Amino acid sequence: MTSPPMEALGQFKLTAWEEENFQGKRSEFLQECPSIMDRGFRKIRSIKVENGPWVGFEYPEYQGQQFILEKGDYPRWEAWSGNSGYRTEHLLSFRPIKCANHSDSKVTLYEVENFQGRKFELSDDFPSLQAMGWGSKEVASIKVNSGAWVAYQYPGYRGYQYVLERDRQNGEFPKYTEFSTQAHTNQVQSIRRIQH
Amino acid sequence: MTSPPMEALGQFKLTAWEEENFQGKRSEFLQECPSIMDRGFRKIRSIKVENGPWVGFEYPEYQGQQFILEKGDYPRWEAWSGNSGYRTEHLLSFRPIKCANHSDSKVTLYEVENFQGRKFELSDDFPSLQAMGWGSKEVASIKVNSGAWVAYQYPGYRGYQYVLERDRQNGEFPKYTEFSTQAHTNQVQSIRRIQH
Repeated sequence: MTSPPMEALGQFKLTAWEEENFQGKRSEFLQECPSIMDRGFRKIRSIKVENGPWVGFEYPEYQGQQFILEKGDYPRWEAWSGNSGYRTEHLLSFRPIKCANHSDSKVTLYEVENFQGRKFELSDDFPSLQAMGWGSKEVASIKVNSGAWVAYQYPGYRGYQYVLERDRQNGEFPKYTEFSTQAHTNQVQSIRRIQH
Repeated sequence: MTSPPMEALGQFKLTAWEEENFQGKRSEFLQECPSIMDRGFRKIRSIKVENGPWVGFEYPEYQGQQFILEKGDYPRWEAWSGNSGYRTEHLLSFRPIKCANHSDSKVTLYEVENFQGRKFELSDDFPSLQAMGWGSKEVASIKVNSGAWVAYQYPGYRGYQYVLERDRQNGEFPKYTEFSTQAHTNQVQSIRRIQH
């Protein structure tokens, strides 16, 4: 049940609309899209993910804030954004997360940059890293050993999101500025596996 | 590591401030608070949970929207609210979640009210119920067999939150209007255990 056959074959599918509640101009996507403008869209205001997972980005060419998009319906911007304080309402590029593997995901968090200092190895979801024994609100470097993860600024999977894949940068994120191109802080208070 | 001794003894602790970023009037809470006005607060704009979990409510007497509060820092409203569309910025009562048990949590979802129809038994976190095989965006009734859970309107733990405890209503939520006093919809697209 964790890996339906179609998704295991990598048949990703996402449908996007220009307006909220699945209204207006619409297009289906089966593979990565570096810029929605190239597909004639000015904006994206609602999304259905039929086969995922995907990651959306604030700017073209996979830049800026990241938004995890798992199977389901997203009728408006706040359904995918966890950061209403910095409200851009942009989602201008997206791509499938091919290495997600919910049942075999491992990640190591480090207290100091470049994989130094105290470390913490995880293979489960942690809505509060502090409750589970991590002594700080910050994480300085991260190594993804398998699967794909999403780390969040606040507890309970809120705030800025950082999608961390085994297949990108060899799974190595030696400092917080590599968590995303738009990471302003090394605050990481929750982390979870991405579900295929 | 899943249940630090202090928290296992139920020594809950939450500190609240009237302004963002832990500024202004401040108070510590060790037990439930049915109305922050009774403690001389007009509003709460930031929170630190030292020992949790807690659940916050939009209105006094544990009414209205619910917000899960696990150990960690919440410097502003959007750190705990998952629903920026309906932006009340109220958190007027809160209480500890005493039956949370991350390592022994079981819940059953039902397709039809009053625990009828197709069912789905869970003991793990599910960021997308549809990806895991639930055929719909809706859940009509829920039975909590053990522990405490938080169900969400959208995938990826976004949108309206419903805190569902074994110790409340005998763990039985026979229709969506009992998920919370403010439930407007039976949409439930993700669910997870609450961490002690």
